[in-house]
Amino acid sequence: MSDFCPVPEVGKHGEFLQKVVDMMFKNIVFTTRQDKVLLWQTPQELENQFDFALKQNGESHEKLMILLKDTIKFSVKTGHPYFINQLFSGLDPYGLAGQWLTDSLNASVYTYEVAPVFSLMERHVMSELGRMVGPGWGDGLFCPGGSFANGVSANLARYRRYPEVKRKGTHHLPKLVILTSEECHYSVHKFAAFIGLGEENVCKIRTDSIGRIIPSDLKHNIEKQMDEGSVPIMVVATLGTTVRGAFDPINEIADICKSHGLWLHIDAAWGGGLIFSQKHRAKLNGIERADSIVINPHKLLAVPQQCSILLVKDPRILYECHSKGAEYLFQKDKHYDREYDLGDKYLQCGRKCDVFKFWFMWRAKGSSGFANHIDTLMDLADYFEEQVNNRPEFMLVSERQYMNVCFWYLPRYLRGRTNILEYALQLQKVAPQIRAIMVRHGSVMLGYQPLKELPNFFRFVSQNSALTKLDIDFILDHISGIGDAIFQ
Amino acid sequence: MSDFCPVPEVGKHGEFLQKVVDMMFKNIVFTTRQDKVLLWQTPQELENQFDFALKQNGESHEKLMILLKDTIKFSVKTGHPYFINQLFSGLDPYGLAGQWLTDSLNASVYTYEVAPVFSLMERHVMSELGRMVGPGWGDGLFCPGGSFANGVSANLARYRRYPEVKRKGTHHLPKLVILTSEECHYSVHKFAAFIGLGEENVCKIRTDSIGRIIPSDLKHNIEKQMDEGSVPIMVVATLGTTVRGAFDPINEIADICKSHGLWLHIDAAWGGGLIFSQKHRAKLNGIERADSIVINPHKLLAVPQQCSILLVKDPRILYECHSKGAEYLFQKDKHYDREYDLGDKYLQCGRKCDVFKFWFMWRAKGSSGFANHIDTLMDLADYFEEQVNNRPEFMLVSERQYMNVCFWYLPRYLRGRTNILEYALQLQKVAPQIRAIMVRHGSVMLGYQPLKELPNFFRFVSQNSALTKLDIDFILDHISGIGDAIFQ
Repeated sequence: MSDFCPVPEVGKHGEFLQKVVDMMFKNIVFTTRQDKVLLWQTPQELENQFDFALKQNGESHEKLMILLKDTIKFSVKTGHPYFINQLFSGLDPYGLAGQWLTDSLNASVYTYEVAPVFSLMERHVMSELGRMVGPGWGDGLFCPGGSFANGVSANLARYRRYPEVKRKGTHHLPKLVILTSEECHYSVHKFAAFIGLGEENVCKIRTDSIGRIIPSDLKHNIEKQMDEGSVPIMVVATLGTTVRGAFDPINEIADICKSHGLWLHIDAAWGGGLIFSQKHRAKLNGIERADSIVINPHKLLAVPQQCSILLVKDPRILYECHSKGAEYLFQKDKHYDREYDLGDKYLQCGRKCDVFKFWFMWRAKGSSGFANHIDTLMDLADYFEEQVNNRPEFMLVSERQYMNVCFWYLPRYLRGRTNILEYALQLQKVAPQIRAIMVRHGSVMLGYQPLKELPNFFRFVSQNSALTKLDIDFILDHISGIGDAIFQ
Repeated sequence: MSDFCPVPEVGKHGEFLQKVVDMMFKNIVFTTRQDKVLLWQTPQELENQFDFALKQNGESHEKLMILLKDTIKFSVKTGHPYFINQLFSGLDPYGLAGQWLTDSLNASVYTYEVAPVFSLMERHVMSELGRMVGPGWGDGLFCPGGSFANGVSANLARYRRYPEVKRKGTHHLPKLVILTSEECHYSVHKFAAFIGLGEENVCKIRTDSIGRIIPSDLKHNIEKQMDEGSVPIMVVATLGTTVRGAFDPINEIADICKSHGLWLHIDAAWGGGLIFSQKHRAKLNGIERADSIVINPHKLLAVPQQCSILLVKDPRILYECHSKGAEYLFQKDKHYDREYDLGDKYLQCGRKCDVFKFWFMWRAKGSSGFANHIDTLMDLADYFEEQVNNRPEFMLVSERQYMNVCFWYLPRYLRGRTNILEYALQLQKVAPQIRAIMVRHGSVMLGYQPLKELPNFFRFVSQNSALTKLDIDFILDHISGIGDAIFQ
């Protein structure tokens, strides 16, 4: 090979990159509790303070460093222990190292020859996760998020029932129906619309007082749909619902699916990580009876965004349903076995490598490390619930099943009452007001939402291994302090 | 706020992360031409040499460093100037800095409050790109790849014709048809199957001798489909086809779409980056007449994977077609204007931030920097073509229009002949054999494929700003040397 000057220019660029790394270490990676979670600015304020404008000419390294600093300054520190706003939080150093290496290698995982290590690694991760699910499992896809994975599973279910749909489309079919919990993730509806099933043909099944599908209602609705001439094709059960962290009764649902020949998809995006914990694995009992399962390691396991896995039981269906055989990529006359080219199983073509950060964290911590992470967090959720129950200014919304602790802060005049749902209109305004103050202050980011007839409540979700009981005391005291100040 | 110990442990983890960074600098970021593009191993050899196994217990930092080193060792160096296998190559230091920062902040861009800087930045980038396309443009989505973007556009086209499809699905509709080039990207078919239109209902339009849609054939097929009772809804035109880099005649296609009321989607994933070059912008003439356009900055502009943008002309349709209004995320009682929450325009929920690396590169280089990048690469493609034409052992497959130079290496007995297509069977075997040797040697990765009646040929595509004329000489000499050795 020839030997011209190195690529790119080491000196200037190397110095710049090292400065960027130093700044990230100082200002993001190793933040402390003294730092704010965010420096709140309204959109208008931020427009005025941040130099967003794209220009004809480039900038100096000095100016670029200022832009990077400002980006950090005004961004939310999602690794901060008081960022408990979503189903992700924390910044794992091994995950970050894995992500940085992924970026440096800048691979696209479609063929073995372009991404040899990552192609085999995907097979190992699928195989090992499959082994943990149950016999016969071991194939699947990395997806750009759990929503997309839910959409892919709906299309697989449709394909299994009507394989001609891949070629001919759906215009000749009867009305197809998906059945799912009324507390399911909204992506079931979004992707039902996208793939041509239609939002209205997602039939919502009623949930019980703690948010689980009521199997008799599922059975009733399947029969009702069939009586009306529709064709149910799939049930989506959830292990760890978004808001309440509820676990649908999988075995009962699987029985119903079996007797009606329905595809069972399990959205375990949030709950699926429990598969690593001996102590809590039983919450997933029956998961092996599914046809497809989505697990998002970027949620419970704190893998960096984005890492979402769709496991599929039938190893042939992914290829059959998705393949197209593009000859510029999957040439038939390759010098190695084409089964190692993963790309044609996927709907995407170019695809960022999501496996490495997860694999690397798994190696760094071991399965036992993930288990410890989960068990510690579950203990913290216990503690959080206990505090909510012990303090008169808080009330649990419904019995806790998982990391999600859903609770109201009660203004003084509502404390000790048993009929607080009669005050739903008043309660509806409490959480947003307290939250707005916390966000403006940058102290804590904690999500809230209404649900069915329940007025706005806070949802505590812990996935950050840095969180401690002292943090929980601080968070509850903080809410209490703000609440007491604004609601007399 | 409280003040416990920092998160995570700075000392041990900080030291480890710095070591990882040093290794990446040394072994990936600043590679030289002396390094191989890849160290080829068959899947079986790699399985034996790389320690993939996932285990119960974690590993020491020393062992983790070995795993990282092996990952680098056996991965393809996609930043290497001799990686010319795909429509991406190179490793821009500003893009990499942007990506690393994105990873450190680990944001999910669904709400303003969780990703304030990135939410506004997306609006700025869409707005500026839109301004460059034409009046009225400025809204769009970042997508996980151009394939997905093509799929989204097909659903938008269907929604515009039949808005009730979002709620009711497609089962009541007639057969809908998409028309596109026979040289289009295969994702048009994959996503037509996925969203329920069906592969067969993608009608392929014939291309001319250099790969462009023949407008009269398009018109003919639209009318034929309508005569048969089908409903054409969309034409997909390509600016920069995957293999030959052809540019479909947009203005003529737009006229046809207008007269038939069809959605015009332009797949400019590969060619769209030319919008930055004054010198070559004219290749995109008519682009502003589309209804939707996909541009992948991760291709021509060398932004790190993955950065794919779907621009949409009608600013309302994304929200109308995709929104669901999940109340746990897009609460109606927020303390800021909800129009700054971008998430409900998207199909995805959690979404990795793809804007920052692009924005940061744009600031670092300026629009003029991207223009220089493009113009230099186009000059190199000129040079490549010139060399192919000047050397008896090479032959152009068809007239070059873009970065793609498609060429055959000719064994001696075929040189100087005008009837080489009569030797298609023999020629079919040449490129794969030469390529297998280059890959095993790790010297150059250069793609090949057949196309229509044309037997296997090489496709040179340059997007790596480190590439020089000397490199091109080396690559051609290298192919020639291997070819001469194996084909007498």
